[in-house]
Amino acid sequence: MAGGVGSRFWPMSTPECPKQFIDVFGTGRTFIQMTFDRFKGLVDPDNVWVVTSEKYADIVKEQLPEIPQSNILLEPCRRNTAPCIAYVSWRIKSRNPKANLVITPSDHLVTDVIEFQRVIGSALQFTSETDAIVTLGMRPTRPETGYGYIRADLNEPSLRNSEIYRVDSFREKPDLKTAKEYITSSEFYWNSGIFVWNVNTIVNALRVYQPEINDIFEPLLPIYGTDKEQQTINEQFPKCPNISIDYAVMEKADEIFVFPASFGWSDVGTWGSLHTLAIHDEHSNNAIGSNINFYESKNCVVHTTQEKKVVIQGLDGYIVAEKDNTLLICKLEEEQRIKEFSAE
Amino acid sequence: MAGGVGSRFWPMSTPECPKQFIDVFGTGRTFIQMTFDRFKGLVDPDNVWVVTSEKYADIVKEQLPEIPQSNILLEPCRRNTAPCIAYVSWRIKSRNPKANLVITPSDHLVTDVIEFQRVIGSALQFTSETDAIVTLGMRPTRPETGYGYIRADLNEPSLRNSEIYRVDSFREKPDLKTAKEYITSSEFYWNSGIFVWNVNTIVNALRVYQPEINDIFEPLLPIYGTDKEQQTINEQFPKCPNISIDYAVMEKADEIFVFPASFGWSDVGTWGSLHTLAIHDEHSNNAIGSNINFYESKNCVVHTTQEKKVVIQGLDGYIVAEKDNTLLICKLEEEQRIKEFSAE
Repeated sequence: MAGGVGSRFWPMSTPECPKQFIDVFGTGRTFIQMTFDRFKGLVDPDNVWVVTSEKYADIVKEQLPEIPQSNILLEPCRRNTAPCIAYVSWRIKSRNPKANLVITPSDHLVTDVIEFQRVIGSALQFTSETDAIVTLGMRPTRPETGYGYIRADLNEPSLRNSEIYRVDSFREKPDLKTAKEYITSSEFYWNSGIFVWNVNTIVNALRVYQPEINDIFEPLLPIYGTDKEQQTINEQFPKCPNISIDYAVMEKADEIFVFPASFGWSDVGTWGSLHTLAIHDEHSNNAIGSNINFYESKNCVVHTTQEKKVVIQGLDGYIVAEKDNTLLICKLEEEQRIKEFSAE
Repeated sequence: MAGGVGSRFWPMSTPECPKQFIDVFGTGRTFIQMTFDRFKGLVDPDNVWVVTSEKYADIVKEQLPEIPQSNILLEPCRRNTAPCIAYVSWRIKSRNPKANLVITPSDHLVTDVIEFQRVIGSALQFTSETDAIVTLGMRPTRPETGYGYIRADLNEPSLRNSEIYRVDSFREKPDLKTAKEYITSSEFYWNSGIFVWNVNTIVNALRVYQPEINDIFEPLLPIYGTDKEQQTINEQFPKCPNISIDYAVMEKADEIFVFPASFGWSDVGTWGSLHTLAIHDEHSNNAIGSNINFYESKNCVVHTTQEKKVVIQGLDGYIVAEKDNTLLICKLEEEQRIKEFSAE
């Protein structure tokens, strides 16, 4: 899933080139490239599909030359994750009715790729044998209020995989007090937005819980892979309701499981999380850019294009981000207002 | 005089395009253009001469298309103001042995151009009748420690012009205590670096006080204005000592006068002075650039290229300056370190 607009990472992330296509850490690989990389050896590039906005088609082709261009599915408009997943699921089912799918955001970070592959492999084995919907639950390391949580029913491990449990309930982003309670329990996990299932499981769930969406994509089975696909999608896709897969399916279906895991996951949803994750100097400054010089500064995250010479003097706790024709200087603690700043 | 490198205004001012060639106030006119403009009607463009570094020749031609290209004198290296003034004085003398000269920096601000023209006109009249060296002394408005001062002998007004007084002494940049004493007296004036004299006065002073310099330029009389001039200057100019006109002549000569005046002068030598001079919003922020947005910020001076979208949140008392591949964020009170920052 690569259709997001990444508005919280402005100005690095812009509607023209959102977060998933940006090399946020200055490593030479963008988020979507890192996402592709972490499936190497586990999923053949021919079986990697990208669902994105039509305006990002060229960026995806450029950043992921390994995958077939026909695997890049283009949404004519944004309708949240449920229509996106319905489209790609039916599209894949048209090619392989027995496929097992991993659904993943393309703008998250995973630091322990070995463990990630072990977990994904184990979950795929599980869904190939069951009709389970598997969500990956991240063991929380702090009382994060920016994530949704999944409560596991630890008394009900699945029979086929002792690491996988039935879901008790999904919980919205909590307040700090609730988040602190969650992390003292071992039952609560962050909702990573990564799902594993076989293709029949998800299309059946859509048939039952989202017939309005399913009735758009199931009838298109004869045209998937033909030269009529894009035009038909352009006509039909906008009719979908705007709804997330969590609301559309997860909170309604029965056979929902959670695979608790720890593989250094973050959604890197904010400058603050980037500040936490990226490499610091001894004064807790992140410098993403090759020529950034700090004087009497600490707790700053500075992100510029590689060539820029930057001098930062006397700042504590700021975001400094510069891209093309935009410069943002903002206290880290005020970063929730970036969407407001970028709009004006 | 347009050979300076303007290192205190980095990164707006760079060795490639120093302060005198920059539109610091965002008005559409650079310092050297504003300097040219304030002589309109008083000095014919054919009589405007620019002495600059050879590497700025094209910038001067572009910014001052009104003046003859042969009036742009090119120094092959920097030797401070005395050799610069010796060169242009002999060069002008070769064309008009009775010329009266105004020597002026090209990177200063004058807000009251009417009064400036009255003062300059009056001083030129005076030097056409006398062999006086006239310095323009600015009536101080604050105990500035960044300027040199001139002490006038107020008991000795000149006979021909009651506004002009003999100089008692030149004073180096004072400490704050001394500066405060200066401004309680009516005898002390800021040294503007603007001089008026007839060409014979200055060449005679150079003959007497700086024979080493004069002996380089006087023998070149036959080649000035010929196609050998530049090559000869390139050979001879580097032999000059590196010395300011103040040390070389002012502090040694006898017939030195000061013309106290008030025409809204500033050398705009620092970001702080620009902050004082440029237009403020109600929170004392200067925004030089067309799309600069402040939130919870005050006492900042922000200077960018016109097209840049800038968001500044939560800053008090900072310089934010961005040009080409450089970005500076620095407390105003630390601006004396900019030279250090720019060098690294």
